[in-house]
Amino acid sequence: MLDRRKFIRNTSLATLGTWASIDALNARSSLFNNGPIRIGIIGTGLRGRSLASLILKRADCKLTAFSDIDPLAVAEMHKQIEKASAPKAVAYTDDPYAYRKLLESKDVDAVIIATPWEWHAPMSIDSMKAGKAVACEVNGAFSLQECWDMVRAHEQTGTPFMILENVCYRRDVMAVLHMHRQNMFGEILHCEGGYQHDLRHVKFNDGKQAYGGGVEFGEKGFSEAKWRTNHSVHRNGDLYPTHGIGPVAMFLDLERGNRMTYLTSMASPARGLHEYIVKKGGADHPNAKVRFELGDVVTTMIKTASGATITLTHDTNLPRPYSLGFRVQGTKGIWMDVNKSIYLEGISTYEQWEDAKKYYESHDHPLWKKYGSDAQGAGHGGMDWFVVNDFIEALKNNSPMPLDVYDYASWSAITPLSEQSIALGSEPVVFPDFSDGKWMKRKNVFANQE
Amino acid sequence: MLDRRKFIRNTSLATLGTWASIDALNARSSLFNNGPIRIGIIGTGLRGRSLASLILKRADCKLTAFSDIDPLAVAEMHKQIEKASAPKAVAYTDDPYAYRKLLESKDVDAVIIATPWEWHAPMSIDSMKAGKAVACEVNGAFSLQECWDMVRAHEQTGTPFMILENVCYRRDVMAVLHMHRQNMFGEILHCEGGYQHDLRHVKFNDGKQAYGGGVEFGEKGFSEAKWRTNHSVHRNGDLYPTHGIGPVAMFLDLERGNRMTYLTSMASPARGLHEYIVKKGGADHPNAKVRFELGDVVTTMIKTASGATITLTHDTNLPRPYSLGFRVQGTKGIWMDVNKSIYLEGISTYEQWEDAKKYYESHDHPLWKKYGSDAQGAGHGGMDWFVVNDFIEALKNNSPMPLDVYDYASWSAITPLSEQSIALGSEPVVFPDFSDGKWMKRKNVFANQE
Repeated sequence: MLDRRKFIRNTSLATLGTWASIDALNARSSLFNNGPIRIGIIGTGLRGRSLASLILKRADCKLTAFSDIDPLAVAEMHKQIEKASAPKAVAYTDDPYAYRKLLESKDVDAVIIATPWEWHAPMSIDSMKAGKAVACEVNGAFSLQECWDMVRAHEQTGTPFMILENVCYRRDVMAVLHMHRQNMFGEILHCEGGYQHDLRHVKFNDGKQAYGGGVEFGEKGFSEAKWRTNHSVHRNGDLYPTHGIGPVAMFLDLERGNRMTYLTSMASPARGLHEYIVKKGGADHPNAKVRFELGDVVTTMIKTASGATITLTHDTNLPRPYSLGFRVQGTKGIWMDVNKSIYLEGISTYEQWEDAKKYYESHDHPLWKKYGSDAQGAGHGGMDWFVVNDFIEALKNNSPMPLDVYDYASWSAITPLSEQSIALGSEPVVFPDFSDGKWMKRKNVFANQE
Repeated sequence: MLDRRKFIRNTSLATLGTWASIDALNARSSLFNNGPIRIGIIGTGLRGRSLASLILKRADCKLTAFSDIDPLAVAEMHKQIEKASAPKAVAYTDDPYAYRKLLESKDVDAVIIATPWEWHAPMSIDSMKAGKAVACEVNGAFSLQECWDMVRAHEQTGTPFMILENVCYRRDVMAVLHMHRQNMFGEILHCEGGYQHDLRHVKFNDGKQAYGGGVEFGEKGFSEAKWRTNHSVHRNGDLYPTHGIGPVAMFLDLERGNRMTYLTSMASPARGLHEYIVKKGGADHPNAKVRFELGDVVTTMIKTASGATITLTHDTNLPRPYSLGFRVQGTKGIWMDVNKSIYLEGISTYEQWEDAKKYYESHDHPLWKKYGSDAQGAGHGGMDWFVVNDFIEALKNNSPMPLDVYDYASWSAITPLSEQSIALGSEPVVFPDFSDGKWMKRKNVFANQE
C-alpha cells in the first residue's frame, strides 16, 4: 500500500481527483482485509474518549495509538483502554505536534481527530499526507483557503476522509429522509436547521469540571471552555453549522447534483454570555469586562443551485431548550422538528399537523432497523455509533465515504462566509465550487442501503 | 372642523408632523362627541362586509355609506344592512372612482378601506385629503414612494390613519406581549413571524365561489382570485408581511424607539401554484401555461436599529397547516408559536419547554379580559373586534392611533424591499426612516391600558 501511495503522489496532479481516490481505495483494500483496522485517536478529551469507547467495542478495529498534550486526557485514555481489557496503546504526548509522530507509525491505518476546532484542518491534512484514512470531528474552518487545502490534500493523496457529522444519522432525521426518498414530500424547496443549544455552562466552568460551576474560560477553564469560548469572544458568524447543514445536505443532494451557491447572514446583539458572567460570577469578576463579538442569534439564508433555500440558526448564548429546528418542505408536504409534526397533502387531515412519531416508527430507516440495537447506549442517542460505523464500513468495503471532503469543505465554509456577510452588513457572499464541477455528476450515496 | 383642517393645510409644511396631527385630533373631537361616528366602507367584498358587521353592531357607529363596483358586493351589503335593521346606506357604485363621491359626503366621518391591495394607498390618500379618518386593511405598497406618499398625506392633513392589522390583537400574542412588558423575556434580541397559509384555494376558484372548486383566476376568478393571484404571477417577494411584522413590531418597539434599518430576502423556486393547476385542472388547462414568479417560500431577514433581528417567512403556495410561526426570544426566555411553548430561565424546568397555554391564561391581556366576551363571534377569533374597536375608541378619545401611518409605511415597505433584494440576489436594501427621526422619541402606546 505504501508503494501504491507513493505512485499516486508522484503522478502528475492533472490526472488526480475522484478516480485517483478510488484507485487508492482499491489499493488499500488488501490491508484492511488482513485484519482489524488499526486506529489512532488524536485528541482524547471527552469527545475523543467517547469515540474511543465505540472503537474499543468493535471486533473489526484496534485502538493502537493516541495523542494528546493534556496529562489528564492521556491518563484517562490509558485507564479506559485498560478497563476495556484492550491492549495498551502507544501515547504521543510531548507537544502539540506529537500527533505527527503518531502519523509516522506503521501500526496506524486510520485516525480519528477530536481536537479543538483550529486543529481539525491542519491535522487532517497532515494525516492524509501520511496516508492515514481520516475521520474528523465536526467544525473547523477559518477561511475558504483552509477548505481548499483540505480538498486538495484529499485529491492529491487519495486518502479516504470523512467528516463525523453524527446528526445525519439521527433516527428521526433518517426516517424523514427515508420518506423523502419515497417521494412523500415532492420536490424539496426549503429547509431549515441549526444549532440552538444553551452552551453557557459549556463555555464557562470552574476550571475543574466540564460543565458549569463557574464563569472561567481560556487558561482558567476546563475542557471546551479552554478553547471554544475564545471563538465567541472574537468571531461573529455561524460558528457551528454542520449539525444543521449536514442533514439538510442529504435532503437537498448538496455536492451531489446540487450545491450551495451563496449565503447572507445576520447577527443579533451579543448579550447572553456577558449577562451569564455577571449573574453567576458577579459584575466584578474579571471576565465581566470581556467583550463578546458573537451575536446571540445568528441567522443565515443559503441559496442552492436548484433554487431551494435553507435557513440556518446558530443560538448558543441564551436560555432555551435544545433544538436543531429542522424543517423540510416540499411540493407535497412538510416536516417540522420543533413541534415534531408532519403534514402530507392528501394523507393528513386538511390543514392539520400529524404527530410525526407515527411516521418515525412506520418509516424507520433500514439502517436503524438493522443496527438500532447495536447503537443502543452509544453517544448522542446512538447517532455516534452510526457515524463511526459508516466510516469503518466504508474503509472495509473500499466504498466512497458517505460524508466526504466536499461536504467538509462546503459545510465548513459556512462559518467564514457568514462572518464575512455579517461584517459586510449582510452582503451575499458566494460559495466556491470546491468540487470543481464534480457536484454535477456525483450521486447521493448516503444511507442508500435502503 | 373643516375650517381647522384648512388651517392645518395652509400652515407651512415645516411645522407639521406629529404635533399638527394631535391638534387636528383635538379639533375633531367636538364632532365625534355629538353622536355616533358615521362610517363609510370602501370595498364591500367578503372582507368589507365582515368589517361592516362589526360596525353595524356598535351603538357608537353608524354605517352611512359604502362603495363598490361589483353589483353582487353592493347587493349583499344592502341586504346585510337591512338584515341588521339599520338605516339604508348610500351606495356609490358607478365606477372605480365612485369612492371619491363618498368622500365628498358630509354624512361620513371615517372610512374603512377593504379593497384589493393596489387601491389601499390611493384611496387612503384621497380619504385623508378629504378629511375622513381612515382605517385601512392590511397590505399595499408597490414602491417606497407610495409609502412616503401615505406618510406625507397624513402629516399634511392631520387626518387620523390606522392600519387594521388584526394579528396584533391575537389573544396569545397579546398575552405574551403582556408578559414581555413585565420583563419576563428580558431584552428581546430576535423575533420571527410570517404568513404561512396554503392559499391555493383562495388564489384559484371556479369563478362562482370564493374558495376552490376550480383553477380560475383574474377575469374568470371570483373574490380574491380576481385580483390577488395576479401578484403571484408577477411579483417575487414577501407579498403579505404585516401579519408577521405587526405583532413583532409591538415587541421590538418599531417606530417607537427602534426601527427596521435593512433587510435581505431569498425566494425558493415557484412550483406550488403551477402544480395545483395541473393537478386540479389538468395539464391542458390554459392556466397551466402561466408562469408564476412568486417563490413558494420567501424568507426575509431584517435588522433593527437596536441590533435585534427578525426573520419573516411568506409561504402561501404549498400544502401546509396555517401558522404565523412567531418566535420572541430575549435574554431571559423564549416563546415559540409553532410548538406553543415557552421557556423562562429560572422558572421553567431546565432546558424543558413549558406548554404556553398556561401562560396564555395566567397572563391574559387586560384588554382581552375586559372585552373578550364582546369580541366573541367576531372574525378571526375575535381579533377583528379588537382592531376595529381600537380605531373607533381612538377616534372618540382623540388619542393617537395605536397602529399608525408610520407602521403602515415601514411594514408595507417590506414588500417592495424584499422584491428588490431578491431581484438583486439577496443584496441588503435599506429602509427609509419614514418618521424623519420621530421614531427616536415616539412611545409604544399599543394596548398599554394594562
